[in-house]
Amino acid sequence: MALSKKVRNLDAVFHPGSIAVIGASREPNKIGHVIVKNFVDGGFSGKVYPINPNAEEILGLRAYKSVLAIKEKVDSAVIAVPEAAVAGVLEECGKKGVKGIVLITGGFSEVGKSDEEKRIAAIAEKYGMALIGPNCMGVLTPASRVDSVFLPIYKLGRPRVGKIAFISQSGAVGGCIVDLAARAGIGMSKFVSYGNAAVINECDLLEYLAEDKDTEIIVVYLEGVKDGRRLLEACRKITPKKPIVAIKAGKSAQGAQAALSHTGSLAGSAEAYSAAFRQSRVIEAETLDELFDFAKIFDQPLPAGSRVGIITNGGGMGVLATDSLEAEKLQLATLSGGTKSLLRQSLPSYANVRNPLDIIGDADSHRYEIALNAMLRDPGVDVILLIILFQTAAIDSGVVNIAIRASDQRKKPIIAVCTGGEYTEMHKRIMESYGVPTYSSPSSAMRAIAKFVEYAKGRERKK
Amino acid sequence: MALSKKVRNLDAVFHPGSIAVIGASREPNKIGHVIVKNFVDGGFSGKVYPINPNAEEILGLRAYKSVLAIKEKVDSAVIAVPEAAVAGVLEECGKKGVKGIVLITGGFSEVGKSDEEKRIAAIAEKYGMALIGPNCMGVLTPASRVDSVFLPIYKLGRPRVGKIAFISQSGAVGGCIVDLAARAGIGMSKFVSYGNAAVINECDLLEYLAEDKDTEIIVVYLEGVKDGRRLLEACRKITPKKPIVAIKAGKSAQGAQAALSHTGSLAGSAEAYSAAFRQSRVIEAETLDELFDFAKIFDQPLPAGSRVGIITNGGGMGVLATDSLEAEKLQLATLSGGTKSLLRQSLPSYANVRNPLDIIGDADSHRYEIALNAMLRDPGVDVILLIILFQTAAIDSGVVNIAIRASDQRKKPIIAVCTGGEYTEMHKRIMESYGVPTYSSPSSAMRAIAKFVEYAKGRERKK
Repeated sequence: MALSKKVRNLDAVFHPGSIAVIGASREPNKIGHVIVKNFVDGGFSGKVYPINPNAEEILGLRAYKSVLAIKEKVDSAVIAVPEAAVAGVLEECGKKGVKGIVLITGGFSEVGKSDEEKRIAAIAEKYGMALIGPNCMGVLTPASRVDSVFLPIYKLGRPRVGKIAFISQSGAVGGCIVDLAARAGIGMSKFVSYGNAAVINECDLLEYLAEDKDTEIIVVYLEGVKDGRRLLEACRKITPKKPIVAIKAGKSAQGAQAALSHTGSLAGSAEAYSAAFRQSRVIEAETLDELFDFAKIFDQPLPAGSRVGIITNGGGMGVLATDSLEAEKLQLATLSGGTKSLLRQSLPSYANVRNPLDIIGDADSHRYEIALNAMLRDPGVDVILLIILFQTAAIDSGVVNIAIRASDQRKKPIIAVCTGGEYTEMHKRIMESYGVPTYSSPSSAMRAIAKFVEYAKGRERKK
Repeated sequence: MALSKKVRNLDAVFHPGSIAVIGASREPNKIGHVIVKNFVDGGFSGKVYPINPNAEEILGLRAYKSVLAIKEKVDSAVIAVPEAAVAGVLEECGKKGVKGIVLITGGFSEVGKSDEEKRIAAIAEKYGMALIGPNCMGVLTPASRVDSVFLPIYKLGRPRVGKIAFISQSGAVGGCIVDLAARAGIGMSKFVSYGNAAVINECDLLEYLAEDKDTEIIVVYLEGVKDGRRLLEACRKITPKKPIVAIKAGKSAQGAQAALSHTGSLAGSAEAYSAAFRQSRVIEAETLDELFDFAKIFDQPLPAGSRVGIITNGGGMGVLATDSLEAEKLQLATLSGGTKSLLRQSLPSYANVRNPLDIIGDADSHRYEIALNAMLRDPGVDVILLIILFQTAAIDSGVVNIAIRASDQRKKPIIAVCTGGEYTEMHKRIMESYGVPTYSSPSSAMRAIAKFVEYAKGRERKK
């Protein structure tokens, strides 16, 4: 895809060598302080220029009266000044040759001031600047330590480096999901709260992310869409290469009314959106929980088919998983004769060698290794669901290593289900951090596997 | 309901003055050691008698060769001896006048030894003993510190005292759910892993819990049922007084096969179970997540109707909540003129006074208090959904106190939705501990509200 200049300039937003924070402040509670602090504390390796006409120094950095007062090149700017001052500083950024802008300031189209927003957009377009916002919560690039999200990390955790890019029309929804992902150990390549989308909108971001080598999976939270046809077209081009998981808020009649009041965007009918998503092979999430449940599974190699092998140390969980498998129209893998005789030799006599494979409550990590290796070798198994109950006396933390090592081989997708409290969550976070997707229940895992298998089938057909 | 002797004797299982641990061990990894330790460390106020023919003392307690060697009265016994020794010690318990038994030992009908199980059951029946098990994971009564669950608390957390009784056919599923509940701050009156149900089955437990003054909500995990008619009858009698939330594993054809292999019980068809649940007004959970999502909402006063008022500091969450409300066929409450004018006076001019009520990202706890009080007073609001995003700069922890105090008034049900990481989870746990049910997403909260409203309507009709 040939990218327009402003879309190419998003590079400056995500990977700047130098950044100006316009509206930087010495007062700890101000947005313009938190942003400077995020760059300084976060270990951003480029130059940071605080811009404040009334300060000499902010957080140990020399402050400047305007971007024009800086002699060196400035790639990107974060703007958090009052709305009346935005046009002026934006014009200065254009003159300075700044390529990327994150405009935090609100008070534009979302409060009916559409003309002011158009004026701002025109300035950005004139200089070909990639402007995110206005009325947005900022941008994260974990790999380059870009962090213009204006909330402190104790309230909103920052995720590790990973392959999922997440773009959100709502700053609040975006923020709480990023926070959730950070805690769960899910990795991200980029997070963008794109706010009113005056210049850079969801389609521009999708086109950019399609070409972004750090991004393999794209997650989208949408309320309204300005150009549905272009969105559909962009998605159709991207999904054969990278999966897109999207949630559309305001799908119901009353939800659309609420969305109109919230972002001023017309929401469109539920059926129209779902149909458009299906056509363009976008994976639609119905709930916030599903958004990352569906996305994170794509860290695993694509499955060759829909035959699921289930390993569990709790029989009841195997039964629940089988119920969910059938509900999701997946297939219960039939273990080969070879696999069965191998398992009969290696597992205790009281283990029932079938699928779901109940390796019994006294299973230790070694027994998981035997079962996992057998399923990895069996050509009749396409996806492995590893249910680990960490409450048992016999299970040891080593099982985490076994799951991670097996996943590292990238032969077949391995998905873990672990239900429990603190001790369980600790182990889940470790697995998640090393790319093994983990779920809290068999049903949520099976729903994700179904989406994964469906996507893989569609991509197969395209080849 | 007139309870049979063995059902009445469950009192000795849940609230014993004295308890014998038969098969107590000095070796820290043995089940018989962990159980004694749970009673000692857990602060059980009654007498604990370790039974071990080869020990003088276990964990500082005098050990006995058999229950018959104890002079004092023994109300209850936990048995964790090899299967061959079970009949003998059970006979001794009967002679001693022990009323309640928790038989941990497995190796009976679940491995095809049904005759042995019948023999055990016959001994218990002869003496009218309430026997839980065999092949079970134990029993918890948080209020009386009874804890025969043989797994250590660092792996399987123990919940606080509360109003939910949870009975589970599967020990593993039961255990991981208890662990989950403990971490989330959900309270329980009782937990019973009833295993093979040789003597006391799910119907007996339901009849007992119906009369139990500490239990207000009953949660059931079922795989197979021995007497469906009796279960249905028991539920029909209980649900007008206490809600029952149940999950049925093995509902699918393949799941039923897995259940047969797991517990040896025939599972029955999905339709038959769902119809039976509906008839007896049991609230059916389709997933493990729903099990406690549905149960914990009943800690709130029953709603007078289905009109939901939504308060949020994140507009997008209000949109999502409205979508879910419509999907669940609940009503969006219409705020009265009085409420609207009060809110217009008290809230900032940029807040849009409607339902969902977006009190904007700069809302502090005081603004939540204003909104919450307005919804509590408005006769057009039956249920209040309080969405709190803890990521914002303005929100303070005081909002937790406001939610708890409002909930304590018990005027209307108040349900909280908070999505996020560690900081958010901390606040959720506090609210949950004081009886405010919390959810991670608008959709899961709305599903629970729908079940709650439906139950309340049915109970209204019965009056």
